[in-house]
Amino acid sequence: MIRGVVMPAPQAPLELREFERPALEPGAVLLETLASEVCGTDAHLWKGQLAGVPYPIIPGHVSVGRIAETNGARDVDGNALRDGQIVTFLDVYGTCGRCWYCTVAHATTRCPERKVYGVTLSSEDGLLGGWAEHIHLKPGVHIIPLPEELDWRAFMAGGCGMPTALHAVTLAEIAFGDTVVVQGAGPVGLCAAVLAQLRGAGQVIVIGGPAIRLEAARRFGADAVIDIAETTPEERLERVRERTGGRGADVTIEATGVPSAVPEGMRLTRDAGRYVVVGQYTDVGTATFNPHLDLNQKHLDVRGCWGSDVGHVYRSVRVMARYAAQFEWTDLITREYGLDEAQEALEDVAAQRVVKALIVP
Amino acid sequence: MIRGVVMPAPQAPLELREFERPALEPGAVLLETLASEVCGTDAHLWKGQLAGVPYPIIPGHVSVGRIAETNGARDVDGNALRDGQIVTFLDVYGTCGRCWYCTVAHATTRCPERKVYGVTLSSEDGLLGGWAEHIHLKPGVHIIPLPEELDWRAFMAGGCGMPTALHAVTLAEIAFGDTVVVQGAGPVGLCAAVLAQLRGAGQVIVIGGPAIRLEAARRFGADAVIDIAETTPEERLERVRERTGGRGADVTIEATGVPSAVPEGMRLTRDAGRYVVVGQYTDVGTATFNPHLDLNQKHLDVRGCWGSDVGHVYRSVRVMARYAAQFEWTDLITREYGLDEAQEALEDVAAQRVVKALIVP
Amino acid sequence: MIRGVVMPAPQAPLELREFERPALEPGAVLLETLASEVCGTDAHLWKGQLAGVPYPIIPGHVSVGRIAETNGARDVDGNALRDGQIVTFLDVYGTCGRCWYCTVAHATTRCPERKVYGVTLSSEDGLLGGWAEHIHLKPGVHIIPLPEELDWRAFMAGGCGMPTALHAVTLAEIAFGDTVVVQGAGPVGLCAAVLAQLRGAGQVIVIGGPAIRLEAARRFGADAVIDIAETTPEERLERVRERTGGRGADVTIEATGVPSAVPEGMRLTRDAGRYVVVGQYTDVGTATFNPHLDLNQKHLDVRGCWGSDVGHVYRSVRVMARYAAQFEWTDLITREYGLDEAQEALEDVAAQRVVKALIVP
Amino acid sequence: MIRGVVMPAPQAPLELREFERPALEPGAVLLETLASEVCGTDAHLWKGQLAGVPYPIIPGHVSVGRIAETNGARDVDGNALRDGQIVTFLDVYGTCGRCWYCTVAHATTRCPERKVYGVTLSSEDGLLGGWAEHIHLKPGVHIIPLPEELDWRAFMAGGCGMPTALHAVTLAEIAFGDTVVVQGAGPVGLCAAVLAQLRGAGQVIVIGGPAIRLEAARRFGADAVIDIAETTPEERLERVRERTGGRGADVTIEATGVPSAVPEGMRLTRDAGRYVVVGQYTDVGTATFNPHLDLNQKHLDVRGCWGSDVGHVYRSVRVMARYAAQFEWTDLITREYGLDEAQEALEDVAAQRVVKALIVP
Repeated sequence: MIRGVVMPAPQAPLELREFERPALEPGAVLLETLASEVCGTDAHLWKGQLAGVPYPIIPGHVSVGRIAETNGARDVDGNALRDGQIVTFLDVYGTCGRCWYCTVAHATTRCPERKVYGVTLSSEDGLLGGWAEHIHLKPGVHIIPLPEELDWRAFMAGGCGMPTALHAVTLAEIAFGDTVVVQGAGPVGLCAAVLAQLRGAGQVIVIGGPAIRLEAARRFGADAVIDIAETTPEERLERVRERTGGRGADVTIEATGVPSAVPEGMRLTRDAGRYVVVGQYTDVGTATFNPHLDLNQKHLDVRGCWGSDVGHVYRSVRVMARYAAQFEWTDLITREYGLDEAQEALEDVAAQRVVKALIVP
Repeated sequence: MIRGVVMPAPQAPLELREFERPALEPGAVLLETLASEVCGTDAHLWKGQLAGVPYPIIPGHVSVGRIAETNGARDVDGNALRDGQIVTFLDVYGTCGRCWYCTVAHATTRCPERKVYGVTLSSEDGLLGGWAEHIHLKPGVHIIPLPEELDWRAFMAGGCGMPTALHAVTLAEIAFGDTVVVQGAGPVGLCAAVLAQLRGAGQVIVIGGPAIRLEAARRFGADAVIDIAETTPEERLERVRERTGGRGADVTIEATGVPSAVPEGMRLTRDAGRYVVVGQYTDVGTATFNPHLDLNQKHLDVRGCWGSDVGHVYRSVRVMARYAAQFEWTDLITREYGLDEAQEALEDVAAQRVVKALIVP
Repeated sequence: MIRGVVMPAPQAPLELREFERPALEPGAVLLETLASEVCGTDAHLWKGQLAGVPYPIIPGHVSVGRIAETNGARDVDGNALRDGQIVTFLDVYGTCGRCWYCTVAHATTRCPERKVYGVTLSSEDGLLGGWAEHIHLKPGVHIIPLPEELDWRAFMAGGCGMPTALHAVTLAEIAFGDTVVVQGAGPVGLCAAVLAQLRGAGQVIVIGGPAIRLEAARRFGADAVIDIAETTPEERLERVRERTGGRGADVTIEATGVPSAVPEGMRLTRDAGRYVVVGQYTDVGTATFNPHLDLNQKHLDVRGCWGSDVGHVYRSVRVMARYAAQFEWTDLITREYGLDEAQEALEDVAAQRVVKALIVP
Repeated sequence: MIRGVVMPAPQAPLELREFERPALEPGAVLLETLASEVCGTDAHLWKGQLAGVPYPIIPGHVSVGRIAETNGARDVDGNALRDGQIVTFLDVYGTCGRCWYCTVAHATTRCPERKVYGVTLSSEDGLLGGWAEHIHLKPGVHIIPLPEELDWRAFMAGGCGMPTALHAVTLAEIAFGDTVVVQGAGPVGLCAAVLAQLRGAGQVIVIGGPAIRLEAARRFGADAVIDIAETTPEERLERVRERTGGRGADVTIEATGVPSAVPEGMRLTRDAGRYVVVGQYTDVGTATFNPHLDLNQKHLDVRGCWGSDVGHVYRSVRVMARYAAQFEWTDLITREYGLDEAQEALEDVAAQRVVKALIVP
């Protein structure tokens, strides 16, 4: 039997349950879990803030494991997978490739068929989340081996924040030498701050908190940090302008989850600059802005960024492997928890007591 | 002596004053005015809604004239200008080509040196606006001859709405077959509706009013019009979704001047669509939106569009000339006014009694 | 029994064979063929100029038909299909959605799994080409209904030239008012000349022949045509420069199939212009160019364009329907042939005696 | 009197001449030269391979100096310059900001008015090149102060290769994790290899020679180098494919000056990849390619890259300052020469005996 952590319903205590070893369909893989992430989304799931979740679920949408069994599966590069390989996989499953969004709009993250491991797949259908000893990768799941130079702990330090940030930073179209402001110092914000340097930013300013996260931002190369708890919006605007010849950031990336951060981010950005909003993952209310001053006269470019696709994870693996000597990825991991400590992990993440928490079965 | 209409101060009655014929610097041109536009901006000027205006001014920023005298000036294509030629010119004067915005950001419409004929140049400095018998084109003003196949009345029917809309529609990156919603049926909105067809839109839906303008939208090819006065936002959203398989517009272009139109436009646009805001020309207040639903989860791309440059006017002239057989441009002109009727023209425009009004000295 | 035209091998005479009515898998459709195109590709197939063709095949990759039977299939918009509907479909079948090209590079036309109806599917596997009374649309084939305002003959007049040209013109990123040169006056070239107008080109110049095709170019709105048989490359360059202030075309689109056209096209394009190469469909030899003069110093942007995807066909349908009143699409069809006249049709196309030939069973 | 090195005519020996100290026009600056580059362009100038050069000239187009005198000049950020500041400047002078290329095409590097310090300005007009004790910066020259954290020697190590490479790498649109091949290991190629890492490339492969330059490529982070002298084109293609799952480079950047490198580079690049050609600076002959195989079927994107503008130099300064701890820029400098050693410097550069040579007066 295989043990897995089940979230039975919003607010209900997590439970450790046993599952049978699944029979593998052609193209499927059984993964022995090495680690699975506990991220802000899991806290949202537990609070019941996401719609369309088929509780009970096994949480854990970004995971890494060793192949225990494979029934003829191949990786994204088309190579046959073999037992013992260490791989990750895209949590998104079932994007149809046939609907209007997939084929005409080329916006696969909007495909209505997409399901997400650990989020929108029920534990009644099997081991479809990462907080378990094994994970059942259905046929068609996009599997990506980790290169030798990328330790699995290092990869998990990025977790789902890395492909999310990679998507956002790609949309941000940073030019060499640009000033980049990142709003938010959680996993997405920290990854964005790193990736901005890997786009040749001229300076990276991280706005957020608490201190533990701002220190991490410093260690990961931020040129300046601004503590959200110790400044007013006016002061933050003033600090950014001081460092940019009075103009504001060329590019701002929002990763906060707080609605009022959005109009503030518009103001932090210079005229004709670009603003990417990636942190408004749940509906926690509205914000007020001035369409003339904050958008139209500014000639501002604002981009909402939702979801990741295969390419974002594939590229995250490549980047983390290539620049592993330059950035101490594992430094982002605060603590590892056993399956029976999942409840504690969830609460630590919800309270922002940790930067990154892992379940290590 | 040369007669010109002067706006002495906000709210003060227009006056007809006399000016001396200017001596031309090398590279300057004296234009005999054929027509100058009365546009919404002039109403804003009169109401005192724009900052930094050096009253008294001669209004009129988009004009066409016959060259009365030239001191060695050349047009944008580099050809020497000659007496009698019918030309227009970019109202923007003095963009420096040396500042950070001009040279590094390539955002010339944000150059702090730019002045605008008829808006930010004072009548104390001469004939620097279009509502006059002659206009003094300083050295460096960008001059564009009208091709023979483009009657000057046809060109003026587009007025400043055409390059503004051309800029917005360019930013909108319409793909072949896209559904385009235009919010607003004034000169910018109508021009945007035409230009969307010249990008191969699959359908163009104009939302606005009053009836006289929606009829013009119909004549200029709109596939559907929605009267703002007879519908609620929910009904408008419903109508757009009915025509788009439930998805919303691929591209929406805002040209209304009303802040609440902006969040509405975000909702009218489909997931992963694009929204261009060009109509929020003055500060008339704030708007409220939901960053999660309206921007982030939608994966929406929002672009503020400010100002025109030489290319926009040059391309407007080319497009209006090429498609003059297809679109009856002059149909946009409601009435021509003499210099001594300028006050009436201004009030007709402010009250939206006309689509396009011209001063014809 | 169902009759279909079979091409047994390169150079071998076409044969009329009988096929059994297929049983439909879930998601499949049986189409009663209304018409199928005879295009240049079919001539290449017959001459054996394409690699990887599993002869015998039923040619015909762009077709339109009436639904005779459906086993629960849906169209690209997600709507259930019903008997009697008139539809077309993307000839490309089997793009995997899982390989590196599909998921990381987002270059689905490079997917190694893609097969093409009428080209790389064998008649031994059934009615998988359009020159037959019925066509078997396998599950997953992308099906697009024709809107009422688009007659099926009008749609077929575009044939595979329209989505090919739409792809090329999209890559060409034509700006409003640009001068567009199209090299080649076959179906792709003519469609490109039309679509350039639907991007707001300032003028469209078609270079090609013979006279029958140049006349068609004129009727479809080309501002100028240049007969390839009556001019030297130097004369053509001279003519284009005369019409562009000495600069050359802003955008050039190649649709000729002749290697030497490519360096000529580079020279016809202005400095910092864009050149799209879509007509080099088979390997007929090399060309020589000067990398300094023709590419580097010109700051030229050159784009090879290969294959179409669902979006190109979907958008073609939308555009042809929307602008059917403006362009007399059926004017492109020279002749319709019965199934038993397929050999004659093929030879007429190979000899360029017709603009567009249809098989109408 | 001020001493400067003059190149009297192609092939003629360099001469040391004396110039009078110029009187400064308003907006002009007199720079005390700290260093000026000897680059491949100077070798071309000396061999007479560039057209339109008004010999005699003072060579030296990329230089750094201390402000000796200023008549009210401002830097690109708009700040007043002051005596003693260490600055560089864009060698391009006189871009008009009014012609069609400047205003409509937004292709300022194609402006017919642009002159280049050290290349197309004659020594008969003054100290308009860098190989002199002082340089006369005319009004309107774009001046950029070096930040404190960027030593002037470090900046000069990049020289004109850095903004050239920055332009090319920007055009290359590298995505995170891409494989980037750089053809050529001279100053432009080495800078491109560094900048590719600052765009998050997954691996960088440098093809070139001789050994001294490939060692520099290794030190500057290249993941692999291929010696052009020890491999055939087929072997190089094989090596690149081995490292890319058989596909080829996502992005290739050419910086060789050898025409045959261009078709080779097309083949080194994967289907639907991108190829930037920046090294074909002079006309040294033609190349042959197969438009079907090398361009069209490959769906290849090829971009010629010519000239730099203010933004490229401004951004180079920012990037070199920000990443000075990571890349040992001065390591690129092989040797410094006095004014009276200029002839030797020129010959060393022409013979590729050095990576980067500086004149230090």
